[in-house]
Amino acid sequence: MRQRLSVEAYVAGVLAADRVVLSRAITLVESQLPADQPLAQEVLERVLPHAGRSLRLGITGVPGVGKSTFIEAFGKYLTGQGKRLAVLTVDPSSQRSGGSILGDKTRMEELAHDPRAYIRPSAAGTSLGGVARRTREAMLLCEAAGFEIILVETVGVGQSETVVRGMVDFFLLLMLAGAGDELQGIKRGIMEMADAVAITKADGPLAAEARRAQAEYQNALHLFPPAASGWVPQVLTCSALERTGLAELWHLIQKYHQSTLQTGYFEQNRRAQALDWMHDYIRQALEERFRRHPEVLRQLPATEKAVQQGHELPLAAARRLLALFLK
Amino acid sequence: MRQRLSVEAYVAGVLAADRVVLSRAITLVESQLPADQPLAQEVLERVLPHAGRSLRLGITGVPGVGKSTFIEAFGKYLTGQGKRLAVLTVDPSSQRSGGSILGDKTRMEELAHDPRAYIRPSAAGTSLGGVARRTREAMLLCEAAGFEIILVETVGVGQSETVVRGMVDFFLLLMLAGAGDELQGIKRGIMEMADAVAITKADGPLAAEARRAQAEYQNALHLFPPAASGWVPQVLTCSALERTGLAELWHLIQKYHQSTLQTGYFEQNRRAQALDWMHDYIRQALEERFRRHPEVLRQLPATEKAVQQGHELPLAAARRLLALFLK
Repeated sequence: MRQRLSVEAYVAGVLAADRVVLSRAITLVESQLPADQPLAQEVLERVLPHAGRSLRLGITGVPGVGKSTFIEAFGKYLTGQGKRLAVLTVDPSSQRSGGSILGDKTRMEELAHDPRAYIRPSAAGTSLGGVARRTREAMLLCEAAGFEIILVETVGVGQSETVVRGMVDFFLLLMLAGAGDELQGIKRGIMEMADAVAITKADGPLAAEARRAQAEYQNALHLFPPAASGWVPQVLTCSALERTGLAELWHLIQKYHQSTLQTGYFEQNRRAQALDWMHDYIRQALEERFRRHPEVLRQLPATEKAVQQGHELPLAAARRLLALFLK
Repeated sequence: MRQRLSVEAYVAGVLAADRVVLSRAITLVESQLPADQPLAQEVLERVLPHAGRSLRLGITGVPGVGKSTFIEAFGKYLTGQGKRLAVLTVDPSSQRSGGSILGDKTRMEELAHDPRAYIRPSAAGTSLGGVARRTREAMLLCEAAGFEIILVETVGVGQSETVVRGMVDFFLLLMLAGAGDELQGIKRGIMEMADAVAITKADGPLAAEARRAQAEYQNALHLFPPAASGWVPQVLTCSALERTGLAELWHLIQKYHQSTLQTGYFEQNRRAQALDWMHDYIRQALEERFRRHPEVLRQLPATEKAVQQGHELPLAAARRLLALFLK
């Protein structure tokens, strides 16, 4: 185990935007070693008053949509505007696939070397809840280090979009032109979570097709219920290759930011998210304790099978397992 | 407290489709008295082998869309086809509003007197989880009593659509023509849960408008990701007044049923739902225990406030409350 710093050293380093210390602080909060927890918690508590002042953007899209290329282009645009940007990822599958650390950095080579940008790959872990928790805490550390925009990317596997939606202010869905095939990978319900849809690779022969898709989706989104924010989701096109549409997207995000600050929705949403975050932790911790109980662990697989096959009532099975746990 | 029957009497009565016994059995499983639980569980276990053979339909729509009128018309159509139909409701607000028992029955007067139909209003309760649990169990009892179609209506408040979606085979969203205002009441994400959208009140001066809306929504739904079932959601129009569109809707539902039976999705979805149901119970029970702990109960309100206002870290607050509970 690498040696830990003192609380003071972590806090001072993070607040001074020292990237090496920031990275070590994120490693600390990501640590699954019980011995690291008190230190991690103290560091987080100390930086908390300095966190929360960024704009948090979530980005999702199926593999092949060009997420990394888009983030590289949009990130460079933002740093070109003088913004400081941190890119985080929620990807519970990254551990299984051997880690996407190298992958992420090489896929965003220019941004990785930009002094105004900081790229941190997904925390390792197989449970989405655990990975999400560590990304949320990394976000606070990045905010304390003065990053003005936090971009949280997700690979769009399973429920990760919903989890990322719950930790950001603005949620962007990337799509390819040519409605049809690329939809196969998007989960139902994601469209209605988006504050904006950006149609990527809108260049060369695909540009016309992208504009057609833009019009179609814009029409469709008008038919859908408005978000709690009152915001009507917008559809735009962009090209990472030709660096077009990026200024328009940033303008749109700023408009959203201004409008939700004025209505009070921005703050209200942040508060609701913090509360959900606490209740999520509690729920996860209770379930984890339950699942780790030796008797539950032993009986769960057969019970799940019996319930699925209709041999046992879900409620009866739940009560039986709970009784083992509470005994 | 009204006297309970014996297990044998409940089971025999339910299987013989005796409505009085069925109603009393549902009252038993809805009972919140701890003393009723072993009996309720035994009755449910005994009828379980006879349950599961119905088609479960979920119906939602905002107030004013004409849900009761639609269910009355569609229900009468189904019983006219010789089908036996049970109508259940998930409405966690019904207790607060003084009970919708009378309301439901008078709003569906014809159906309420139809010998092939059985209408049971929502279980009382303020927690959606508890209300949903009791509706799921009432559904099993109705199935054991030989009802071939179970219609689960929900008022579309909060998360109840998601919960109903998780207990049915087919989910129908009712909408009014004239996109715009009526959307205000629908929650984002509901559209993408629907297997079909029926535009109600498609008669008289609204008929043309309804057809226009049908075409618009059908176009829009094509742009959205396909469901796990592979089914492309359909949009149709109907009129409870003129009794039009009901045969088409039933035809569509049957087509869905046949197609998902063939692909195996129907069975696979039922199995997944049963498992989710068990895990939901466990989660609810664990959280309820946590929330009822005297020290948690005392400290939760102030803690929630501190977290919302950013004075305490969600994780730190969660750990502190968990420590109280686990001590």
